[in-house]
Amino acid sequence: MSILDSNSVGSPSSDGEFKPLNSEEFRKQAHQMVDFIADYYHNIENYPVLSQVEPGYLRSRLSETPPYLPDSFDDIVRDVEKDIIPGMTHWLSPNFFAFFPATVSSAAFVGEMLCTAFNSVGFNWLACPAATELEMVVMDWLANMLKLPKSFMFSGTGGGVIQGTSSEAILCTLIAARDRALEIIGVQNIAKLVVYASDQAHSTYKKACKLAGVLPCNVRLLPTTQASNFSLSPALLRTVIEADVGAGLVPIHLCATLGTTSTTAVDPIGPLANVANDYGVWVHVDAAYAGSACICPEFRHHLDGIERVNSLSLSPHKWLLSYLDCCCLWVKQPSQIIRSLSTNPEYLNNKASESGSVVEFKDWQIGTGRKFKALRLWLVIRSYGVANLQSDPRFEIVTPRLFSLVCFRLNPCPRSATGTEEGLNRMLLDRVNSTGRVYMTHTIVDGVYMLRCAVGSTLTEELHVVAAWKLIKEGADALTERVESRV
Amino acid sequence: MSILDSNSVGSPSSDGEFKPLNSEEFRKQAHQMVDFIADYYHNIENYPVLSQVEPGYLRSRLSETPPYLPDSFDDIVRDVEKDIIPGMTHWLSPNFFAFFPATVSSAAFVGEMLCTAFNSVGFNWLACPAATELEMVVMDWLANMLKLPKSFMFSGTGGGVIQGTSSEAILCTLIAARDRALEIIGVQNIAKLVVYASDQAHSTYKKACKLAGVLPCNVRLLPTTQASNFSLSPALLRTVIEADVGAGLVPIHLCATLGTTSTTAVDPIGPLANVANDYGVWVHVDAAYAGSACICPEFRHHLDGIERVNSLSLSPHKWLLSYLDCCCLWVKQPSQIIRSLSTNPEYLNNKASESGSVVEFKDWQIGTGRKFKALRLWLVIRSYGVANLQSDPRFEIVTPRLFSLVCFRLNPCPRSATGTEEGLNRMLLDRVNSTGRVYMTHTIVDGVYMLRCAVGSTLTEELHVVAAWKLIKEGADALTERVESRV
Repeated sequence: MSILDSNSVGSPSSDGEFKPLNSEEFRKQAHQMVDFIADYYHNIENYPVLSQVEPGYLRSRLSETPPYLPDSFDDIVRDVEKDIIPGMTHWLSPNFFAFFPATVSSAAFVGEMLCTAFNSVGFNWLACPAATELEMVVMDWLANMLKLPKSFMFSGTGGGVIQGTSSEAILCTLIAARDRALEIIGVQNIAKLVVYASDQAHSTYKKACKLAGVLPCNVRLLPTTQASNFSLSPALLRTVIEADVGAGLVPIHLCATLGTTSTTAVDPIGPLANVANDYGVWVHVDAAYAGSACICPEFRHHLDGIERVNSLSLSPHKWLLSYLDCCCLWVKQPSQIIRSLSTNPEYLNNKASESGSVVEFKDWQIGTGRKFKALRLWLVIRSYGVANLQSDPRFEIVTPRLFSLVCFRLNPCPRSATGTEEGLNRMLLDRVNSTGRVYMTHTIVDGVYMLRCAVGSTLTEELHVVAAWKLIKEGADALTERVESRV
Repeated sequence: MSILDSNSVGSPSSDGEFKPLNSEEFRKQAHQMVDFIADYYHNIENYPVLSQVEPGYLRSRLSETPPYLPDSFDDIVRDVEKDIIPGMTHWLSPNFFAFFPATVSSAAFVGEMLCTAFNSVGFNWLACPAATELEMVVMDWLANMLKLPKSFMFSGTGGGVIQGTSSEAILCTLIAARDRALEIIGVQNIAKLVVYASDQAHSTYKKACKLAGVLPCNVRLLPTTQASNFSLSPALLRTVIEADVGAGLVPIHLCATLGTTSTTAVDPIGPLANVANDYGVWVHVDAAYAGSACICPEFRHHLDGIERVNSLSLSPHKWLLSYLDCCCLWVKQPSQIIRSLSTNPEYLNNKASESGSVVEFKDWQIGTGRKFKALRLWLVIRSYGVANLQSDPRFEIVTPRLFSLVCFRLNPCPRSATGTEEGLNRMLLDRVNSTGRVYMTHTIVDGVYMLRCAVGSTLTEELHVVAAWKLIKEGADALTERVESRV
């Protein structure tokens, strides 16, 4: 076979030239791959979720040397089935309960296709204005959804950037905190720097400290206990910081965790920030997993005190349907990150960058090159809307659920002008009860009308609760449809 | 409109539940996106290659707050056309001559689709055995194509890993070199560490040094001159290292560049390694751009001496059709990288990792999570074969082209058993001349038969040279078809 055999994939067009990006061949192969992937998702439960192969299984199946001549697309796809999939641990399987799940969506997938397709290398504004500006918009949107203060937004005095993973986000803040201190005490005193986290913090924190040149003996991983649900004690933090200061060390950075990897422990952000602020310590909140939940009103309280920290990161690739890699980092004073991470080679200079009127994201991250990262999150937020991403935000749990009674009410949709909340909830209760399929009651406490769902009849099973909740939501749908106009 | 209106995208299936990864909706949207992208590639020359927008153009076009209700897929795609594309600098346009081009291919695109779709987080072997093992295979394949010594391969004593960008690759090697030195001189002596590169090295080197805690005053960016085509002088390196050692400093790392960003200058790897090896300095070769060219025999000499360096990185996303991000890093002693970058949290422990029989790539990089990165390169190499990726490797330029005469010959395809090279080339010359469309001659020097293509008749234009080259390749096709069987 000639290397220019026109039957081979990636093969020459009719004029005999090798054209690796022929748009029609691209179209054909990409369509084939879409069907392959859709079928994979459809059948994903049929695979063993944890791969059953032995170490080294693949080497024996594949050639030790690269193929000299092209293989056909069909052959390659067959090999994915035959050689690759048996060695996969299927992270998207509904039976995957390990580590933290990595959630995804159609919207994020097509967003990533677009990002890949553009292949823009937006290290600075001019290299791809849309990439920079969409990232600014989306980071502000997500900050808005999290009810972050304006001090973390571009529309305020801060800003955000999409990193690959939390490891990079944490490292960037640590470097900024380190350099802020070294400017005062001199670089030769790097051995005096000391940092803090709980013993439940992600292992990447210790690694980031090592990368940044913080001595391992100066990384304080403070003990936590079951009594405090493994959350970091502000009192202990103060004691340890004071001892360090007394010993002539320089505290620079605290990494508080919102949802630890082992057990989802939550460090108390506000009280910890109070302590850290007394000593000028940079506070970073690592909310890689649980941060996404805070777009829901019922979880938002975990971020209380966020206005007193310096930076926050969370990973939508964990719990906001966004595929890898997507870690959002907000900082209150971007200039402190930029001072540490900026570069200024002549070949990147241009009028926009010199004017200082644009954001240059290369100065907010470890590397230089960067993809059009915001497209995925933009697609997710637009395709689903805040409404679908929150846990049905129309409903509010009015009083804490302590036993098996849930007291809740329907809030009017924020965009609609509707009647009183009480009227709405009376209508909802009537509607639900009138079906004859469930019966629940109401109460009024401190002037607030709410529905009471008391779970626990002798014969009640989970399926009954699920059906009841479905009925309630359908009632809410009908009521909100009646009062809303199409937006 | 209800938030559960079934006309909205990402909308509920018939049972009213929000299902962000319904396989049929996925199929539909992804097919639409394939066509959008194929059309974009088809029409890419119609867009201004450099975006003409002013800073801030996008903020005024998009809502300041995230949408509460879903937008339809069609609306979003229309907005990509209307709002995003005008702000794009089109890196894949054939009129893009800035920075370095970022080359891509259909094969890499479908490989990336697959990587995204699997969404495996292969931080360790067990979390996705196929991801780890395919990366090992592909890194060895590419090492093979580059004719790297076995000391850089998993099948030998070294190994390779796919990083995001060169910045990360360089940082990893620098940290390893730093820690290797600190183990001997003690961490408190970090201020004594000194590193070397030419003043043409990528700006990310200085940044990596800063990240790693090497004092800015100890980063030696040695001057280069036009006289040496801006390549780093081994003699100068020796002088400076000796002075530093004399001053009590500890040289740890040299970053030699193969193809600098400003002018593609090439530092002489072998002679520089000889100097560095005398002082136990880690030598990293940053071949981000030009390294990919070294798979072609005519460029391979730039890697001469590579067996004496510690690590090498190059970015297939620049010049090997692979889309962002894809930077390949090979190291001769992986244990030195791993010692610096490994973590060992309890929740990642498993039998395979404890056995030590598997590669855990989280210990070869800055972060923890990682995608199924090897799929893209695997698809590229398999789809096109080494044959198409090299610059027609069947031909060899036998003597350096000094003026307008090119002396070349056809080499037998490596996989075929054929007649003598002289016979083959005689046949080629006869065949080409017998068409009557060109006339070239031959010579024999030191026993080697070669064709002589003397360009420069008064009326010769580029089109004539191109046509002649096409004729020669067609002749080679016919001859190699005759002697080869289908592989």
